[in-house]
Amino acid sequence: MPESATVIAIGPDPSAPRLLEKAVVGAGARVGALAEAEALIWTGQPGDFPTELPASVRWVQLPAAGIEDFFDAGVLRAHPGVEFTSAAGAFSHSVAEHALMLLLAGVRYLPEHLRATSWQQREFFPHVGSLRGKTVTIVGAGGIGRALIPMLAPLGAHVIAVNRSGRRVTGDGIPDSVETVPAEQLGRVWSHTDHVVVAAPATAQTRHLIGADELARLKPSSWVINVARGSLIDTAALVEALTGGVIGGAGLDVTEPEPLPDGHPLWTLPNAIITPHDSNPPQLRLAAFADHVGANVARFVDGRPLHAIVDTDRGY
Amino acid sequence: MPESATVIAIGPDPSAPRLLEKAVVGAGARVGALAEAEALIWTGQPGDFPTELPASVRWVQLPAAGIEDFFDAGVLRAHPGVEFTSAAGAFSHSVAEHALMLLLAGVRYLPEHLRATSWQQREFFPHVGSLRGKTVTIVGAGGIGRALIPMLAPLGAHVIAVNRSGRRVTGDGIPDSVETVPAEQLGRVWSHTDHVVVAAPATAQTRHLIGADELARLKPSSWVINVARGSLIDTAALVEALTGGVIGGAGLDVTEPEPLPDGHPLWTLPNAIITPHDSNPPQLRLAAFADHVGANVARFVDGRPLHAIVDTDRGY
Repeated sequence: MPESATVIAIGPDPSAPRLLEKAVVGAGARVGALAEAEALIWTGQPGDFPTELPASVRWVQLPAAGIEDFFDAGVLRAHPGVEFTSAAGAFSHSVAEHALMLLLAGVRYLPEHLRATSWQQREFFPHVGSLRGKTVTIVGAGGIGRALIPMLAPLGAHVIAVNRSGRRVTGDGIPDSVETVPAEQLGRVWSHTDHVVVAAPATAQTRHLIGADELARLKPSSWVINVARGSLIDTAALVEALTGGVIGGAGLDVTEPEPLPDGHPLWTLPNAIITPHDSNPPQLRLAAFADHVGANVARFVDGRPLHAIVDTDRGY
Repeated sequence: MPESATVIAIGPDPSAPRLLEKAVVGAGARVGALAEAEALIWTGQPGDFPTELPASVRWVQLPAAGIEDFFDAGVLRAHPGVEFTSAAGAFSHSVAEHALMLLLAGVRYLPEHLRATSWQQREFFPHVGSLRGKTVTIVGAGGIGRALIPMLAPLGAHVIAVNRSGRRVTGDGIPDSVETVPAEQLGRVWSHTDHVVVAAPATAQTRHLIGADELARLKPSSWVINVARGSLIDTAALVEALTGGVIGGAGLDVTEPEPLPDGHPLWTLPNAIITPHDSNPPQLRLAAFADHVGANVARFVDGRPLHAIVDTDRGY
């Protein structure tokens, strides 16, 4: 590595995780002291953030997807000439993979398979489905939705992406065939989708987005997957739909209430898969952050626009 | 549709499945009587195949992936000027999807999740894995392996494909990063793969391809998936490896013996997922055949080479 390589500091811990160091070096920069650095990869809390940065520092990578704490602590305002990036999008991959797993397990009848202790091929045959040629509606086309679309494409599923604007969802690995529907027209989607993945933020508008009416318009074979927030689905209506065979099943990484209390019917319904909000476990987060850092350092070195630039006035 | 469109006959049943008719029409041809047809889509048995075909018929699509029965019945030899295609590859997609489902369910710890009746987030966190950045070795790069590779790519898995020749596996959706290893060098793969998917034919050479030695060289987190034939894995060695934590788990759509008898330890091991050879159920087969027919009719209309052309001398 020539001495002239871009210097990136990692802080506050001087013995930075090796994974981050490797990401920086792999992207064509070198790790050095803050005093000589052009950028700072920050892994600590807002309270420990340096009150002053050397004039050489032009970019700070923050460690979280939501950086309200850094904004509220005044970190961004204290360094007006510096570009800040969050880790938005970095942690979407694992959650999208989890959503795909829940959907495939449901569609291919895995819960009943796991309960079986004898060879029931003929009994199971009619229940084993496929995503090929099926329509999957993803409600919310943020990081998780955009990571999920390329995973669904090779399975031959047709994807409807629902976002606020209705602006066409595009990007790496997102096929032209993806249909984008604005949230206000969500009502027309239910009756011609096969499955639904909920990946939208929890807001007043999205509370109980899926209730009895929406469930009734889905198919008896439809699976509903929620990897966003429990409040987006009306749990009582969902339990009723699952019990009555109105839909095929539900795969839920998030519930309302959360944690789901012992004895709740969702624990024992044969067509419900519950994972306790563990789609993005801690050990996967550092690896994902390192990938994000590597991609951003490569962009910084090349002078290309960074991923997940924070609007320092608005704080996200 | 202009009258000049290519005419395709479907036989022997004159009231052909609508799905096949739609496939033919969707590919730009029309369905007509055999007497005026340029091609025949055959859905019946070898014994019912016409002894004579009109001179206009240049292509026959057979309904099975393995067409030994048609070969043995002399169907191919009786029509020397006609090109025959099998349905080889048509049914791979569903099996590949099943393999992906088993692998994801294993890696993300779904069996334990499904047994839980309380919120165990902290207990489950360390066990939830991801395919991102992991190496998946696919033993056998035939139809199933080649269908699985594009499904693994967007999950960020690195794929090692093992085939007889070691000739680079290429094709639609198969990334350049796929490593191809000849079967004779399979021994060097075990210790640096994370997971294994078995998708090779059952032959004398592949019997017990995975035994105690191979399992011992995998990781305690490795999942072994078998969607090919039970005989490729030494079942006794597998049970021992699963019981002793030598590997993470096994997802098996095929077993030895098959059907797996009641009371077999694989039914109750917590890290074994058994599906009773139902990865390609009957109702998915017609849809898959229709897709294959549609693709081949489109090629026939355009004068492009057909998929799965049968070597009429060798019979496959």
